[in-house]
Amino acid sequence: MSGVIARTRTQATSALRDIQAPVREGLEQVVEEMQRVVSDDLPLIREVSGHLLQMRGKMFRPTLALLASRAADTSEPRVITLAAVVELMHLATLVHDDSVDHSVLRRGLPTVNSLFSHQVSVIMGDFLYSRALTALVSMGDLEILRIVTNIANELTIGEMRQLAAVDALGFGEDDYYELIRAKTASLIAGACESGALCGAPQFRQPLAEFGDRLGMAFQIADDILDYTGDESVTGKPGGLDLREHKVTLPLIAALPRVSAAGRRRIDELFATESPDDDMIRDVIGVVSEAGGIEYARRRGEQFAHDAEAALRVLPDSPVRSALTDAIAYVMHRRS
Amino acid sequence: MSGVIARTRTQATSALRDIQAPVREGLEQVVEEMQRVVSDDLPLIREVSGHLLQMRGKMFRPTLALLASRAADTSEPRVITLAAVVELMHLATLVHDDSVDHSVLRRGLPTVNSLFSHQVSVIMGDFLYSRALTALVSMGDLEILRIVTNIANELTIGEMRQLAAVDALGFGEDDYYELIRAKTASLIAGACESGALCGAPQFRQPLAEFGDRLGMAFQIADDILDYTGDESVTGKPGGLDLREHKVTLPLIAALPRVSAAGRRRIDELFATESPDDDMIRDVIGVVSEAGGIEYARRRGEQFAHDAEAALRVLPDSPVRSALTDAIAYVMHRRS
Repeated sequence: MSGVIARTRTQATSALRDIQAPVREGLEQVVEEMQRVVSDDLPLIREVSGHLLQMRGKMFRPTLALLASRAADTSEPRVITLAAVVELMHLATLVHDDSVDHSVLRRGLPTVNSLFSHQVSVIMGDFLYSRALTALVSMGDLEILRIVTNIANELTIGEMRQLAAVDALGFGEDDYYELIRAKTASLIAGACESGALCGAPQFRQPLAEFGDRLGMAFQIADDILDYTGDESVTGKPGGLDLREHKVTLPLIAALPRVSAAGRRRIDELFATESPDDDMIRDVIGVVSEAGGIEYARRRGEQFAHDAEAALRVLPDSPVRSALTDAIAYVMHRRS
Repeated sequence: MSGVIARTRTQATSALRDIQAPVREGLEQVVEEMQRVVSDDLPLIREVSGHLLQMRGKMFRPTLALLASRAADTSEPRVITLAAVVELMHLATLVHDDSVDHSVLRRGLPTVNSLFSHQVSVIMGDFLYSRALTALVSMGDLEILRIVTNIANELTIGEMRQLAAVDALGFGEDDYYELIRAKTASLIAGACESGALCGAPQFRQPLAEFGDRLGMAFQIADDILDYTGDESVTGKPGGLDLREHKVTLPLIAALPRVSAAGRRRIDELFATESPDDDMIRDVIGVVSEAGGIEYARRRGEQFAHDAEAALRVLPDSPVRSALTDAIAYVMHRRS
């Protein structure tokens, strides 16, 4: 087992604050850069952008881009624009996801589709994305453009994969990895890889690999949290994936191991358009007893281990420590 | 009055076929290139892409890009990719527009949102757009990337302007030009300008200007057609803009000239959530009698005249003739 996981299991979870400490000043510049990139005269655009920038989350992806650019102590100022672009692309994706899912809340605030309209959310997602690209083109780095436009495409393919999963219970473990690599790991890996190109190009490959494994661990942890999370901590009701008939790793791992009675309960849930809380609680129990959650945890730990291994070629520095702490943060976050 | 308009008023309208004759072979390659750019393993993506490529329209924008690249007889092969990118961006915009407007039919075929789902249309629009950009980045021309990403942003701003127009009847002539420049002329101008960069860079400026004026004339003609068009020819019901409370040039021009009784009818229509056919027919009559349609026609002719003027610096050639014919085509199309 990787050292970072064993260590943080008994210690307090690494705070995001500590991870962001080496790039604190840079992150403030990223927020200003995001505001500059989306600024426009049209009042409606200003209003929606203002709401979205207020809604912005923990700036995890920009943090990774900034840290990656400092892996060799020669960070370039243009990483600020890059980090802003990465976060804006992430925001654009969230806006369209919420529109597609008809979600009402995101990070405790009303979504664009609920506060404005479905129309505004579709077009504002396009606006954010096109502005992010305009800013990226002005950086004038074709290699970074190649990485970022490929990610943008991966993200949409991930979403399409999710929409295409008709036979939910036929969705296998490899399908699942393919899906989460496209919809989550690609952007986290891209933030690290393109960040590396802004100051530490010699570490491009290991940082891309680190980001990929970190992103996989991130999504698996998220999917486990949907089974185990406490709504008062996570801010969203548990079992949401089951409610929406989304099949994630705990269920995939449990399926071959459940009893006939357990399988009937699962089938029943997937045949019910709007499963109720009891039904969801029952299936969570079935998945847990069959070891599905424990299996997913082990797979997540393996990805975390691989992420840590990818960092070994980096010189020992506060940046490398922060990236290592980011793994622990991903594994142990509760919301 | 410009020669091309006077001439074509009495002659048969230029057929798109003739305009496309100098670039016929190129257009076939563009279709293949579009297929290559969107190809993917995911069955759902293949299915939607297949439907969209079948739905593709008259390839007007790729035609302009190809013609522009030949303005100096030194067209570069990469214009094929550029033209495919321009048409895919146009398609992506249509897919999102139809989703936003809940449209059911487009070019006589079911829209993506009606045939698949709202979800699929949002994500497929993103997919098309990101694939188009990936192809553009692989061309490796930062100046063309600058033009195209700026257009993409203009298109979204145009859509946002349309959504933001709350006080529909307060929408003035300048607001209208700003809107149609963003939502229509920008892409047509961009097709011409970036096309010029693939073989005729010395004509970049006049071709961009030509495209801008042509795009303005194009949208005005389209908006007039909504007042005057015959459904059996246009393929869509007349008065659709009025039905959706969209204010276009004929109405803007008529407003200061209508009688008090006419104004009451207009106000009534805009206060009715779903105006019926009689109400729409009445308002079309009011607008027509006040000279709104005639005014819009004159403004369209002025833009057509300016488009023709911009071509004067080009050497006389079949390409210049085709571009001139494109103006007449825009002015006199019936569907």
